[in-house]
Amino acid sequence: MQNFRIFKQVPRLLFGEGSLSRINELLPIKNQKSDYYIYVIDDVLKNSTILSNIVIDEYDLIEWFPATKKEPSTIQVDELKNSILERKNNIMPLAIIGIGGGSTMDIAKAVSVMLCNEGSSRNYQGWDLVPNPGIYKIGVPTISGSGAEASRTAVLMGADRKFGINSDHSMFNAIIMDSTLIKSVPVDQRFYSGMDCYIHCVESLEGTMINELARGYADKALVLCDKVFLENGDDDMLMTASYMGGVSIVNSEVGICHALSYGLSIELDYRHGFANCVAFDVLDEYYGNHVVKFREMLKLHNIVIPKNVCKGMSEDSINRMIDMTLKMERPLTNALGKDWKNILTRNKIRELYLKM
Amino acid sequence: MQNFRIFKQVPRLLFGEGSLSRINELLPIKNQKSDYYIYVIDDVLKNSTILSNIVIDEYDLIEWFPATKKEPSTIQVDELKNSILERKNNIMPLAIIGIGGGSTMDIAKAVSVMLCNEGSSRNYQGWDLVPNPGIYKIGVPTISGSGAEASRTAVLMGADRKFGINSDHSMFNAIIMDSTLIKSVPVDQRFYSGMDCYIHCVESLEGTMINELARGYADKALVLCDKVFLENGDDDMLMTASYMGGVSIVNSEVGICHALSYGLSIELDYRHGFANCVAFDVLDEYYGNHVVKFREMLKLHNIVIPKNVCKGMSEDSINRMIDMTLKMERPLTNALGKDWKNILTRNKIRELYLKM
Repeated sequence: MQNFRIFKQVPRLLFGEGSLSRINELLPIKNQKSDYYIYVIDDVLKNSTILSNIVIDEYDLIEWFPATKKEPSTIQVDELKNSILERKNNIMPLAIIGIGGGSTMDIAKAVSVMLCNEGSSRNYQGWDLVPNPGIYKIGVPTISGSGAEASRTAVLMGADRKFGINSDHSMFNAIIMDSTLIKSVPVDQRFYSGMDCYIHCVESLEGTMINELARGYADKALVLCDKVFLENGDDDMLMTASYMGGVSIVNSEVGICHALSYGLSIELDYRHGFANCVAFDVLDEYYGNHVVKFREMLKLHNIVIPKNVCKGMSEDSINRMIDMTLKMERPLTNALGKDWKNILTRNKIRELYLKM
Repeated sequence: MQNFRIFKQVPRLLFGEGSLSRINELLPIKNQKSDYYIYVIDDVLKNSTILSNIVIDEYDLIEWFPATKKEPSTIQVDELKNSILERKNNIMPLAIIGIGGGSTMDIAKAVSVMLCNEGSSRNYQGWDLVPNPGIYKIGVPTISGSGAEASRTAVLMGADRKFGINSDHSMFNAIIMDSTLIKSVPVDQRFYSGMDCYIHCVESLEGTMINELARGYADKALVLCDKVFLENGDDDMLMTASYMGGVSIVNSEVGICHALSYGLSIELDYRHGFANCVAFDVLDEYYGNHVVKFREMLKLHNIVIPKNVCKGMSEDSINRMIDMTLKMERPLTNALGKDWKNILTRNKIRELYLKM
């Protein structure tokens, strides 16, 4: 008997076009004048009509998060926490709403947790290190694929590593899946983020840490990814795929691609979905036909993955990427078994990076 | 825009062979001497080893529920509630654990709700009529297919109708999916209950009240049913199918087969899964190829559905069945649209019953 973790799910979901306007059905009710919500919103939405769907009052806070600049960091989380507490005289919000892609939702999750736990967010990067429940939180994806809406993980860049806060307390209490919100995402962004989902499913299905329930989610999400990226599947399908792929990952584990992509993000400042695509493109040896199908998708959507991305990189940089990859013990155990260190040696990792 | 209900999910699941022995990871901790749990267990398990998986102390209550005798009723729920409060001097349990099939789990759900709400359970049959949250509850299926582990519904026989308590408060807080528990289910029971899942998926997919997320669950569950009942799918797959079919139904609706089967249960005391099979077998007109596939499954598992079951039935009985069917407005709207009353007339319903 393999002892699987308790399978966690977001208990309440609103699904469907226009459902963001029903957010009040999910929000805790304000009773006092000082009660407020915090909206953390991807700043690419600053000129969109997003706020017309929500009733915001003068006490609420809106944080426009610069998600496209770089991967979210522990420093940003700590600063945001302090700034909120300062502006609100240590009064806690009733709810935090994260509206954006994986990065923005991860920031919302991390701030929710950090408002109720001492010290810096970097102390909680790892598995199940968060003692206190966070603030009630709602996730609203405006780009699909990361699965952050479904996951326990808030991935943050630290000083020398990219690592998730993985805790039951970092899961959303509710999510809203409104496909009108992802309609204006640029084609390449939509693709890279969608491939995050595709790769989650592949890593989950090809790994050892999976059970039939998580397989159910990953299988279905993969079928939906095929429909969306190889046929004429619609945005509701893409949102469903992202969610189900996320559920599968919460309850299984990622694999080699994610382990390598973290190195790329650390050294080259690549965004997560893009880094995943760059890495996945050299993983025929591990994910065979799935990589072939990925290349069909690239072709169909006219996306070109850059090559020789590590050319001219210093030996120090490459070693830092290798170090980062080797820190991903759980994903690599999932992909290659307990003996992974003998299979994915430093030399092998270097070889893979140089192939990219 | 169709306004879908908030999609509800059980937040915590334990999955895998032997997972019942980890039930303590899900139970609220006892702090006082008077703290206790109630186990409601299907009495067919009385001579099984089920209790060897659980640590039960002297303050806990065990209720062996006669689930095979007949469909669970509002009278049984009310009696059980009163008997618990009497024996425990009105001290509430910390948790209720329902171990069994759909009927037993439904009783556990209903008692959980009724301990915290006034009056008789028959007052709460319907949609969203329960004001107060219930006692913390855990569902443990020992036969798969009903989806009761995933659903908001506790279906109960009342004086003149079979009807569900449908409330967010009647959902389990956690479920345990341990496939070792369904290994000893007799072949015919396994089949009838499994078909409950198959029929849920068909009704959900062929209905109008569905969105892409619920479709994701129903599609996957249907594929798993095919694997289990037409190929060599295993018990983990059957448990996953049952759960996913249940999730789909929570977030969409059943259809004509369930509406007709309720009449059979009322008049002929048929158990739910069996009644569904009897009804589904005459629904080619509505569920076409799914009925053809159902007959393949019957054949492969050597199950013979009785015919002429309404032969010799009094006119009164038939009228009561028709009345019961016509009460199922939501399922029939789901199946046939708003105009369903003009399509499924009394005569048409009579004709279908006489075909069974």
